[in-house]
Amino acid sequence: MEYTKPLAQLIEFFQKFPGIGPKSAQRIAFCLLKMQLSDIQKFARLMIDAKTNIHYCDICYNMSASNPCEICSDTKRDNSIICVVSEIKDLIAIEKTREYKGLYHVLQGLISPLDGIGVEDIRIKELLTRISNSSINEIILALGSSVEGEATSMYIAKLLKPLNIKISRIAFGLPIGSDIEFADEITLARAIEGRRLINSPEQISR
Amino acid sequence: MEYTKPLAQLIEFFQKFPGIGPKSAQRIAFCLLKMQLSDIQKFARLMIDAKTNIHYCDICYNMSASNPCEICSDTKRDNSIICVVSEIKDLIAIEKTREYKGLYHVLQGLISPLDGIGVEDIRIKELLTRISNSSINEIILALGSSVEGEATSMYIAKLLKPLNIKISRIAFGLPIGSDIEFADEITLARAIEGRRLINSPEQISR
Repeated sequence: MEYTKPLAQLIEFFQKFPGIGPKSAQRIAFCLLKMQLSDIQKFARLMIDAKTNIHYCDICYNMSASNPCEICSDTKRDNSIICVVSEIKDLIAIEKTREYKGLYHVLQGLISPLDGIGVEDIRIKELLTRISNSSINEIILALGSSVEGEATSMYIAKLLKPLNIKISRIAFGLPIGSDIEFADEITLARAIEGRRLINSPEQISR
Repeated sequence: MEYTKPLAQLIEFFQKFPGIGPKSAQRIAFCLLKMQLSDIQKFARLMIDAKTNIHYCDICYNMSASNPCEICSDTKRDNSIICVVSEIKDLIAIEKTREYKGLYHVLQGLISPLDGIGVEDIRIKELLTRISNSSINEIILALGSSVEGEATSMYIAKLLKPLNIKISRIAFGLPIGSDIEFADEITLARAIEGRRLINSPEQISR
């Protein structure tokens, strides 16, 4: 005997989610069946509501129940800086630092020819239109250091060069609290390459 | 900014499940939002249906949409043997071997005084009633080798002794494919203790 049919279907559905294998799906399904029916009904409504109400912001492609999103419609934020990220979770990670008060642009992906993702498949065109329609002073590229992140950063930097805007990238180097002896060669090389003068905020020019 | 409210609520709910932390919950929620609305509605129905239709079998306390469950109502199974397990997932694990054709009894827990779980809190009384109402030849205890598993096995064995039924425990020893040199001392000690004569199916009596 396998699981009774409704339970087997439930376990199968949970396996569609990332990082959930057969054993985790089983544990989650049992946990769900132990909940109150009213809680499960609330959960079901929550999922359907989220899917129905959450849309992409027409300006920055963040996900939000309002359009424009909470960030784009916040008048206290600095609308002369745009931080370009690949996914919404990167935006949230930056927001959690409470250091950045500008706007965002979510590309919804990175250029990756191997996966068949080209320049047209991510929101680069929309970024260009957005920059040309407003007065932007600086674009911060926060796209990670993977091959795809590097390629997309280089592509956007080249594209924006004629527009005469300040273009920066977030710093790569040693994470805070880590030891130099345990850092990998590439991180250490990037940390030396990106060194800064102690008495000046300017980066040493390469 | 944190996540937009419906998304934050969804992420929070996913964190209620075992093994799902904030980052996994976030990934699962994004994955859910990328699904079709019709799939999400199907998933929601599946959860509510499972909760509404699945109940414990009145005989063996397995979970099933029918009562008695598929196993108890299967006339092809040997109803003179009962395998006692602590949780339904153990029942499913044994079923997957396709070796056992008897019935089951799910205790829904193990005796664990530290967690406040006593003899009355698990389905031992129901097991006794069941045995006295039918002609059972053998009880197989498949309760694991934790302190709680050992204690529960000993308790049930002692309780059943006057009834003059064969009482057995599943074998503990080296897992198939493992090396003797890497086995821990307790497993190896149990493997030697539980050794069997090669030419006879009988275990060496202790």
